[in-house]
Amino acid sequence: MDAQLQKLIDKLDTLDFSDMYEGDFYLTWEKSQDDIEAVVTVANALRNLRERNISPRIFDSGLGISVFRDNSTRTRFSFASACNMLGLAVQDLDEKKSQIAHGETVRETATMVSFMADVIGIRDDMYIGEGNKYMHEFMDSIIESKGDGVLAQKPTLVSLQCDIDHPTQSMADLLYIAEKFGGLENLKGKKIAMSWAYSPSYAKPLSVPQAIVGLMTRFGMDVVLAHPEGYDIMPEVEQVAAKNAAASGGTFTKTNDMAEAFKDADIVIPKSWAPFVGMEERTKLYAAGDFDGIDALEQRLLEQNKQHMDWVTTPELMGLTNNAIYMHPLPADIEGVSCEHGEVTNDVFEAHRVGMYREASFKPYAIAAMIFLAKCKDVQGALKALDAQDKQRLMTVK
Amino acid sequence: MDAQLQKLIDKLDTLDFSDMYEGDFYLTWEKSQDDIEAVVTVANALRNLRERNISPRIFDSGLGISVFRDNSTRTRFSFASACNMLGLAVQDLDEKKSQIAHGETVRETATMVSFMADVIGIRDDMYIGEGNKYMHEFMDSIIESKGDGVLAQKPTLVSLQCDIDHPTQSMADLLYIAEKFGGLENLKGKKIAMSWAYSPSYAKPLSVPQAIVGLMTRFGMDVVLAHPEGYDIMPEVEQVAAKNAAASGGTFTKTNDMAEAFKDADIVIPKSWAPFVGMEERTKLYAAGDFDGIDALEQRLLEQNKQHMDWVTTPELMGLTNNAIYMHPLPADIEGVSCEHGEVTNDVFEAHRVGMYREASFKPYAIAAMIFLAKCKDVQGALKALDAQDKQRLMTVK
Amino acid sequence: MDAQLQKLIDKLDTLDFSDMYEGDFYLTWEKSQDDIEAVVTVANALRNLRERNISPRIFDSGLGISVFRDNSTRTRFSFASACNMLGLAVQDLDEKKSQIAHGETVRETATMVSFMADVIGIRDDMYIGEGNKYMHEFMDSIIESKGDGVLAQKPTLVSLQCDIDHPTQSMADLLYIAEKFGGLENLKGKKIAMSWAYSPSYAKPLSVPQAIVGLMTRFGMDVVLAHPEGYDIMPEVEQVAAKNAAASGGTFTKTNDMAEAFKDADIVIPKSWAPFVGMEERTKLYAAGDFDGIDALEQRLLEQNKQHMDWVTTPELMGLTNNAIYMHPLPADIEGVSCEHGEVTNDVFEAHRVGMYREASFKPYAIAAMIFLAKCKDVQGALKALDAQDKQRLMTVK
Repeated sequence: MDAQLQKLIDKLDTLDFSDMYEGDFYLTWEKSQDDIEAVVTVANALRNLRERNISPRIFDSGLGISVFRDNSTRTRFSFASACNMLGLAVQDLDEKKSQIAHGETVRETATMVSFMADVIGIRDDMYIGEGNKYMHEFMDSIIESKGDGVLAQKPTLVSLQCDIDHPTQSMADLLYIAEKFGGLENLKGKKIAMSWAYSPSYAKPLSVPQAIVGLMTRFGMDVVLAHPEGYDIMPEVEQVAAKNAAASGGTFTKTNDMAEAFKDADIVIPKSWAPFVGMEERTKLYAAGDFDGIDALEQRLLEQNKQHMDWVTTPELMGLTNNAIYMHPLPADIEGVSCEHGEVTNDVFEAHRVGMYREASFKPYAIAAMIFLAKCKDVQGALKALDAQDKQRLMTVK
Repeated sequence: MDAQLQKLIDKLDTLDFSDMYEGDFYLTWEKSQDDIEAVVTVANALRNLRERNISPRIFDSGLGISVFRDNSTRTRFSFASACNMLGLAVQDLDEKKSQIAHGETVRETATMVSFMADVIGIRDDMYIGEGNKYMHEFMDSIIESKGDGVLAQKPTLVSLQCDIDHPTQSMADLLYIAEKFGGLENLKGKKIAMSWAYSPSYAKPLSVPQAIVGLMTRFGMDVVLAHPEGYDIMPEVEQVAAKNAAASGGTFTKTNDMAEAFKDADIVIPKSWAPFVGMEERTKLYAAGDFDGIDALEQRLLEQNKQHMDWVTTPELMGLTNNAIYMHPLPADIEGVSCEHGEVTNDVFEAHRVGMYREASFKPYAIAAMIFLAKCKDVQGALKALDAQDKQRLMTVK
Repeated sequence: MDAQLQKLIDKLDTLDFSDMYEGDFYLTWEKSQDDIEAVVTVANALRNLRERNISPRIFDSGLGISVFRDNSTRTRFSFASACNMLGLAVQDLDEKKSQIAHGETVRETATMVSFMADVIGIRDDMYIGEGNKYMHEFMDSIIESKGDGVLAQKPTLVSLQCDIDHPTQSMADLLYIAEKFGGLENLKGKKIAMSWAYSPSYAKPLSVPQAIVGLMTRFGMDVVLAHPEGYDIMPEVEQVAAKNAAASGGTFTKTNDMAEAFKDADIVIPKSWAPFVGMEERTKLYAAGDFDGIDALEQRLLEQNKQHMDWVTTPELMGLTNNAIYMHPLPADIEGVSCEHGEVTNDVFEAHRVGMYREASFKPYAIAAMIFLAKCKDVQGALKALDAQDKQRLMTVK
């Protein structure tokens, strides 16, 4: 067997991730440390197989259902790639075509689309208090229908971003960071700054910063959350971060000073998000069906952003760091490229472009690993069987 | 071999369904009794295989083309599930993207999309006199092109609902009823009520009640069609039902009294549909391109519906039955849930929800069986080969 | 081995097409004569395999990404068919959903969607100077990302029509012509007329006539380009055609007289396109974002077309030919069918309908051959392996 794959399988032997079998993936902090390490390890194992032209297909047929309640290109393709890699066809549940809403309708639709479904991927990140709730409603119906004998198999949920967390993004980020530093075990003591940045384009969800502080505090790192006043994240996620940091021997601190966050950092993730109260207001307007109000709010939030145009990542700021890796979930608002004033200057972005693309390349594997762990009872056995079976992904004549 | 599968194959040995090979599926009453029983039997065989984690794939590649001329979630997913189960990828022919119309354009497009097509699934149920005709136009071109040597294979049509029949729905219903009563042979003498019900939502096609009376009269059941005056179904379908009933030793009767229909019934299927003359008028408006007229007509039809708000399935009505199964093709207009006044009260709906979900779960298998019977020359041989080959749908390590 | 397949493999042994491996397909005239013959030969080999029910799948999984910047049914289905035949799932990159533009955004998106991509199919034919450029921008990013270690594989580009060329159409046409005349070697000395024709429907791209004269001049044919004054094609493509003709021992001539072009022709391809200066103006309006101006221009171009209503293919004109094959990429503007005055009379069209459908049936194979040649290092070996492996595309019980 390939030495690297053997090493990854050996690593899995040291972990207990049995609760992931037949499970769902909503929030990283609902998962044990071993679970998280299993996702990282399986993602790397699947990458190892595919890059050696060995097909990691575990499905002969089956469907991955995607529900995008917000526009998406990157995540859509990552989900499609992950499903395809494992042997599933993707079927979009298009709400504009099928008029899905909350409540009874969700309950019924969830079951109706799931007769052959192995995976449900949902993105619903626009309204605080809504996305995660919607996913649970969707899955509750499915689990009930499985119990009722209506469904022969329970599809696994992979959250593709909710209002609280963005686990496939943060797990891809973790895979990239682990690669850069030579393993999760080397992250202890590293300083990582999750910072707000100015954006002129739109009021962005809070789930990325929340995902980062909720996950990265688990590895003994010094995690700093920086933002202007009024741009707090959800308090319950801050509590998660604080608890994680205490447990892992790291720290979780906050500042309103971008430079302080960057000082001696090993990793910086500067990215815009909307003011918390604004996001709460948006949810109320949504509940009231006031879409003109949402548009007006959006303008006010962008005006508020303008007071903090100095929150931009420049070479000077990067100079304060410990030669830090600059990361971004993409797309970024790049000064002089997509906007006049934005999240980052073009020279900083260009210097780290390849790294960010590499970062993004882990997302399909992170998603595939979540599916693999939910579907394979004997994970190491399945990986060994795939390796032994040596089915070429692209036929080559030997 | 699995005992249940063996029994199903034994059953197939007693049937002559050879005309289904290379055929198409428009209307159930164009099929012989043996054909219908073969669809039921193959559907159950495919379910048996898949639920034992044996892949029922008969295609290594190939396309299922779907044409939805009306919105659909349930049928869309059922078709996608059936195609996927057998190894086909679905490609949507989106009319808004591709500007398909009747006549020459249909003729040409039908061939152009079919070079690699094994299945054509069409839903066109909105206009009386149009849907079934469109499907025939589509397939006539394909059959001509096959004869001309342009197409190497003839895809099979599966009607996903036309103006006359909804065969994949009624076959799924039949599969469910057969399961509930322990086999088609036990349906003789049972009373089934296909009843109109009040709906405030939209003027619904007649194809479901027509599908039910056109199919269920074939099994010696007492089939009652109930509706207010003015809500007749197509007379030619009533004739089919009467003829079927006579041949099968059952009855086909009509009433304008919902309670009479429910009296001692074993199965009730109460569901709204539009007044017949309204549907004919809609076709004329459509032919004239008068879409404002169609909207105005829709409002008048909903007003007409309001005169029959008492056609709602209540616990009291259910009390008249012989502890009947309540069925609905879904989604239903449920009182106090999706509307104030509707087809059914919430308590009746809830008491039968699991059953209706089970009912819906048969639709992918009904579609897959239609395809299987059109594509496999040796159906029993193909089922045996799938069982013997024992290809896992989801890889499990033994 | 099947005799015809053996003959095709023997033919490949005489050709040097090694530069196609890992390459891209933008313009036919960027390819060597051997490359073009290899595409023809592999397309026929894939057709041979599939029509003998042998699956030509070389991919166990993988994605074909399609980017349609203009509406399309035929090409969309051809691309889907080609991908499916080889084992790839198609994922549409929908610009309306994902807001792609030129420049930095293209660069980033191209990599973001390509992590699991084996093929990129792009159609971008609306604006002179834009389509081919866009494709290069897209692929430059991908090649860079492959070099940077971000992508594990380089997807191959298949142009599905740009502003300059329409290679999958002209290659399908060539396959059809070769079949009609018994091989590429029999085309020498044949006269082929690429003629403008009147259309009332819309101002059509120049890429089809350019594709025809750019490709057909390579086989020693007498290629005549006919159009009214003001309907010239791009001068650089005329130069390509002239150079090709000189090299192949054929001729490339121009005329403003449709009858002269048809005189003694063996093949005629009469089809509408827009005036060149109009297309240039359209690009400028597009660059200025003047979409009202584009609409107004469209009306002026259609008015200009009306001066040449006599450019219609009639039985009389066909009578001037050497019993020519009439070809059209479809859909055509047929007099008395889709319009009052158009490109062709109905009787001419009908007499050649089957031929044109056969012509169209080669497009999926042309696309699949381009992919196959880009992905298989040992093309003949791969074809032999597929034949030897004898995997049934549709399971049949023997």
